[in-house]
Amino acid sequence: MAKTSKKLDNLFHDTLKDIYFAEKKILTALPKMAKAAKNDDLKAAFEKHHAQTEQQVKRLDQVFALIDAKPQGKNCPAIMGMIEEGQEVIAEYKGSPALDAGLLAAAQSVEHYEISRYGTLRTWAEELGLEKAAELLETTLKEEKETDETLTQLAESVINVEAEAEQTA
Amino acid sequence: MAKTSKKLDNLFHDTLKDIYFAEKKILTALPKMAKAAKNDDLKAAFEKHHAQTEQQVKRLDQVFALIDAKPQGKNCPAIMGMIEEGQEVIAEYKGSPALDAGLLAAAQSVEHYEISRYGTLRTWAEELGLEKAAELLETTLKEEKETDETLTQLAESVINVEAEAEQTA
Repeated sequence: MAKTSKKLDNLFHDTLKDIYFAEKKILTALPKMAKAAKNDDLKAAFEKHHAQTEQQVKRLDQVFALIDAKPQGKNCPAIMGMIEEGQEVIAEYKGSPALDAGLLAAAQSVEHYEISRYGTLRTWAEELGLEKAAELLETTLKEEKETDETLTQLAESVINVEAEAEQTA
Repeated sequence: MAKTSKKLDNLFHDTLKDIYFAEKKILTALPKMAKAAKNDDLKAAFEKHHAQTEQQVKRLDQVFALIDAKPQGKNCPAIMGMIEEGQEVIAEYKGSPALDAGLLAAAQSVEHYEISRYGTLRTWAEELGLEKAAELLETTLKEEKETDETLTQLAESVINVEAEAEQTA
């Protein structure tokens, strides 16, 4: 069944290259975000997600192998734009109590991009009868959703309160 | 309480400008996506979301008014990147049965970006004591989540099956 669906195969492969490129960029951005973050819990969350992202890249390597393709990235303007926005926040809010809130927002936009991409890829893998690939993509999708949830909790419970407290002090 | 939190105010205002710019770009992109889509349900979903986006821009106008600011956009590289990806799909998959699946994926990446932005802005509005703004942002957030859900259902039930059926025919 999988092999007859040539065009969806192409789209799956193209989108796999897109998220592969994105994950590699995220791997280089996360240490900078961890370094910039002031809140220890946020710093730890970025560091944990960096380790997790390394595993996610390995899973993508496996998915490439499952479709007999070489692991390869393809320029992804969306992730470049999001990382640029994160860098702008670091530059513009350095020293501000709102810096962590800005870092969190930038990280959550990236998480949501990944959630949409992995959700799409998982659905297509199922359509294409690539069950093992669908499982791998589902595992990463679940991790990304958990990371987003962690960041939401941090945003609601720690960062914004901290930003206000420092301002009113 | 709100007025003391100067830096979070700035971040809120900056991010409001970011999503305002994004919504305006989305307004120009959606008719092109509706025109390119082959599936009637997908076409209708894009058209419905265009009308919805016009209302969302009006809500943003109200939020700007609530913080005594002029409605104004600020270059948002992330949305430009996502729209570029959507245009690439239209160019590369024109005439392919997988075109609609690609359009859906591009639209969902945009929806997720918006979900993350509106979630962030709603949380910050609450922190800043801007209750009316938080309500307006929550209304739009709910709509974006519903749109994403609609697109997910379309992706799972119609488009991918269609792409495969046309290929195996």
